[in-house]
Amino acid sequence: MTDRAASVRAALDATVDAVAPLDPIALAEARDRQDRLTKPRGSLGVLEEVAVRLAGLAGQCPPPLPEPAAVAVFAADHGVHAQGVSPWPQEVTAQMVVNFVAGGAAVNAFARQTGSTVVVVDVGVAGDLEPAEGLLLRRVRPGTADLSTGPAMSRAEAEAAIAVGIDVARTLAEQGHRCLITGDMGIANTTASAALVAAFTGADPGDVTGRGTGIDGPTLQRKVDVVRRALDLHRPDPGDPVGVLAAVGGLEHAAIAGFILAAAAQRIPVVLDGVIAGAAALAAHVLAPASMDACVAGHRSAEPGHAVALAHLGLRPLVELELRLGEGTGAVLALPLVQAAVRALREMATFDSAGVADKEA
Amino acid sequence: MTDRAASVRAALDATVDAVAPLDPIALAEARDRQDRLTKPRGSLGVLEEVAVRLAGLAGQCPPPLPEPAAVAVFAADHGVHAQGVSPWPQEVTAQMVVNFVAGGAAVNAFARQTGSTVVVVDVGVAGDLEPAEGLLLRRVRPGTADLSTGPAMSRAEAEAAIAVGIDVARTLAEQGHRCLITGDMGIANTTASAALVAAFTGADPGDVTGRGTGIDGPTLQRKVDVVRRALDLHRPDPGDPVGVLAAVGGLEHAAIAGFILAAAAQRIPVVLDGVIAGAAALAAHVLAPASMDACVAGHRSAEPGHAVALAHLGLRPLVELELRLGEGTGAVLALPLVQAAVRALREMATFDSAGVADKEA
Repeated sequence: MTDRAASVRAALDATVDAVAPLDPIALAEARDRQDRLTKPRGSLGVLEEVAVRLAGLAGQCPPPLPEPAAVAVFAADHGVHAQGVSPWPQEVTAQMVVNFVAGGAAVNAFARQTGSTVVVVDVGVAGDLEPAEGLLLRRVRPGTADLSTGPAMSRAEAEAAIAVGIDVARTLAEQGHRCLITGDMGIANTTASAALVAAFTGADPGDVTGRGTGIDGPTLQRKVDVVRRALDLHRPDPGDPVGVLAAVGGLEHAAIAGFILAAAAQRIPVVLDGVIAGAAALAAHVLAPASMDACVAGHRSAEPGHAVALAHLGLRPLVELELRLGEGTGAVLALPLVQAAVRALREMATFDSAGVADKEA
Repeated sequence: MTDRAASVRAALDATVDAVAPLDPIALAEARDRQDRLTKPRGSLGVLEEVAVRLAGLAGQCPPPLPEPAAVAVFAADHGVHAQGVSPWPQEVTAQMVVNFVAGGAAVNAFARQTGSTVVVVDVGVAGDLEPAEGLLLRRVRPGTADLSTGPAMSRAEAEAAIAVGIDVARTLAEQGHRCLITGDMGIANTTASAALVAAFTGADPGDVTGRGTGIDGPTLQRKVDVVRRALDLHRPDPGDPVGVLAAVGGLEHAAIAGFILAAAAQRIPVVLDGVIAGAAALAAHVLAPASMDACVAGHRSAEPGHAVALAHLGLRPLVELELRLGEGTGAVLALPLVQAAVRALREMATFDSAGVADKEA
């Protein structure tokens, strides 16, 4: 093992070791507080449990407001693009990175609406990229190999990509961000996501492979076949998440897995975007099950594998608007809901303090 | 007819007359623009149609950002409370008005998150209320009569309450608000809402009456019986919306109907909260069908009548988080989604401008 590989492994191990369960005292305080606020018990629905969980994560009730937030858009290319699984040319990955940096993509517009920072991380784009403000050049390799004919990458490369995600999450936290948001960009990355979801959950490729950004029936059939062939070729062991990522994942999946682990280790909430984040979270879940306590499922995308991943992880999505864009858009849209959930717990009056009569027993 | 009643009637007629269809040119421009933005076509799901509709409402593409926003919380009491349909004492309506004005309720916390103004309108509270900043004293009568034993109010009172809603919407628009949000407070108002939904849609009371803020089985059965008895007593004509409101509605329902009509007349989007707003929108829809084009269904509450009302109106809710609080909370939570939808149309780069390759045909 090289010095570099040893340092990457140490970072991963230390991060996994730092992931701890929610604080039971803060959880109990938050549940009790929810019931004393001036509203019928349970009337804020799903948001009540989000706020309670964030109290447990922070170890204090009420928890701090999850702001400012930063969305990290992890960009990478996929060798499986050669199998004709997407109607978009591979060059679009690099072109969209330029668009993110220029502020012209949907995720930029949504981030402006919420006052969030966007950082773009080249963890494995195939094309050339010029240095730019807001762009972190952390390329592990210029795109994966074709997962349907061999491993997408080596174990060392998967670990290096995980370490990139860990480092980005640490840096954003050091800068004062109190909510992290996953974003992604990579033409053909829903194919790798479907393979990951099938590998980790045992679902049939036909049930977790979808139309991505919009493909026709024959292309979808080809995509399902590609995923099935990849699983037959690698027979990935779901108990070895780094091995699964190396065999059928993407560099952005590995990076997002590390990003989630580091957020959880630092006890900062992380809002997950769509199926790419869901597939990455499956890897993080095996590495450190308690890391899921730091995750809020921002939305449920139109991609069928996403619902399967969320169900496996026990996460309920906040936004369901048939989005299928990626970039972090669904998660950034969910951010105000997460913030509002915490606001309620922090700022609402109690029945006692407001002099409001409670329901008759 | 008194001078006052004549002036109320004139305001209502003028508002209804001013409601016009969406602008077809702006609609077409917005649809075309959606397809040129740097995203797969349709990938912003439900939000794309929201932005297109707001372009049609504004008569320009892209439409202006729907901000700043104001939520008007219309508060009123209900004589049907005497039938034991709620476990909360009626005094809670006035107590919560004080809580709103003090900034301690959930809607206040959510409004702060979105930078929205909260105004509280006493359109029919039964208890005493002191003047306060942010509280508009526009009481038409101190709560309705019991709708299960007679008309809830007179036609003139229903029209006066509608006029209050019109006036509040006009005032908020004059103050520069570019998005209006419906809110409500009134112990027992889900009973009146159920009666309105049944009257306007023809649904069975058993299918549209719910647990409100949380009632037990026997209370729910009593509530269904009360609604059924009211409909049998009044046999309201759904073609006469003012008559329906007078027979089985609430003063806040009438006011919200006027608020919606005035928003539409001024071509300002109005985000609807839960079942109270949904029931009020059914009245606005009969008075001026095109007013629904100005409405965005903020959320779908846990109350069964709400889903029936939204389906009848053809509105798709943006947030579905099992909320059952009212106050405008669900609509305020949806506001950032509406704003993000418009941001995308306004701020995203096009394939041409960003130099991003489009999908292969």
